[in-house]
Amino acid sequence: MNICTYSYEEYLHLVKSFHGNLAPGLIIGGFIVDLAMKNLPAGDFFDAVCETPVCLPDAVQILTPCTIGNGWLSIAPFGRFAVTLYEKYSGKGVRVFLDTEKLEAWPEVRDWYLKKKKKKEQNSDLLLAQIKEAGHQLLSVQKVQVEPEKVRRKKMGPVGICPVCGEAYPSKDGEKCRNCRGETPYTDVVSINATNQKVAG
Amino acid sequence: MNICTYSYEEYLHLVKSFHGNLAPGLIIGGFIVDLAMKNLPAGDFFDAVCETPVCLPDAVQILTPCTIGNGWLSIAPFGRFAVTLYEKYSGKGVRVFLDTEKLEAWPEVRDWYLKKKKKKEQNSDLLLAQIKEAGHQLLSVQKVQVEPEKVRRKKMGPVGICPVCGEAYPSKDGEKCRNCRGETPYTDVVSINATNQKVAG
Repeated sequence: MNICTYSYEEYLHLVKSFHGNLAPGLIIGGFIVDLAMKNLPAGDFFDAVCETPVCLPDAVQILTPCTIGNGWLSIAPFGRFAVTLYEKYSGKGVRVFLDTEKLEAWPEVRDWYLKKKKKKEQNSDLLLAQIKEAGHQLLSVQKVQVEPEKVRRKKMGPVGICPVCGEAYPSKDGEKCRNCRGETPYTDVVSINATNQKVAG
Repeated sequence: MNICTYSYEEYLHLVKSFHGNLAPGLIIGGFIVDLAMKNLPAGDFFDAVCETPVCLPDAVQILTPCTIGNGWLSIAPFGRFAVTLYEKYSGKGVRVFLDTEKLEAWPEVRDWYLKKKKKKEQNSDLLLAQIKEAGHQLLSVQKVQVEPEKVRRKKMGPVGICPVCGEAYPSKDGEKCRNCRGETPYTDVVSINATNQKVAG
């Protein structure tokens, strides 16, 4: 059993190293991306949509060329456990999702996925064993036509200098950058002086 | 010159392999994360905030344990070229940003960053050489107090089954999942039958 070009064990190793722990969602995510790759629409380049930010984006980033930073991976915040790979220009895509109708044969996966058990009541060995056994059998596949402009990262456009913080920002955000317009998560902002920076550098 | 635990050349190799190309922003991102790590606030665990989705999240994901999928990396959409690492519980953080006041000595970096030149007018060898030479000298450091609840991924909460698509989704999204409430980027959704799936699986 392989996950894309990796053996199952190699994939688990990558999950641990990139994601930090063997999250059940990321192991199922490996099967999702694997099945999507096997049904890839024809074309030279594909982009990815992940329908949740939880775990699944890391499966896409480990297994495909699509990352958050290069913009080929988008997150559509639907909270559904699904990945779509689509041909960049035509928008023709394949969507693979965890199918709730197929969960009955793997009750530990069902109870985990539908949150029927609290974390401490879950049997994590059994959960991982059922995921490994089930593999693609938890999943269903759809052909979809993607409207890329609905998911793809918007272009940044012209750059301005924010009159408040002095940093560069997208002019389209208005007279000030969004941080200085009040969306900041920071308080007590204090510059560290050049001497400290030298030590740091 | 190192980027965290990697030599500069090793880091470039990782950038190519994860991100697909030697994006200037991701190389500067390496220096940003490196400088932030050197000024890390005391504490056992840190989370990351990236103030743009462009390039920079990949530097964080390559160099730290924080990823989009594990939720330790958040994106605050301010369009500023900055990374903050903060202690998970206290919110004490260090913010490193590309400082527009420091750009004058590296005109090719300035023209690229402030979009003063079109892509085809840029000298990419010179740009990468100036980035390498400048390193931390493009950057400034601040101590900040982060309000984690403003940036951290919200908990998914209870799970429901969407009456339209039949998939699991966060109940807090309403009677139907957000895809089925009209935010879908998909048209022409067609199930691929089990036979095809068997071939694929």
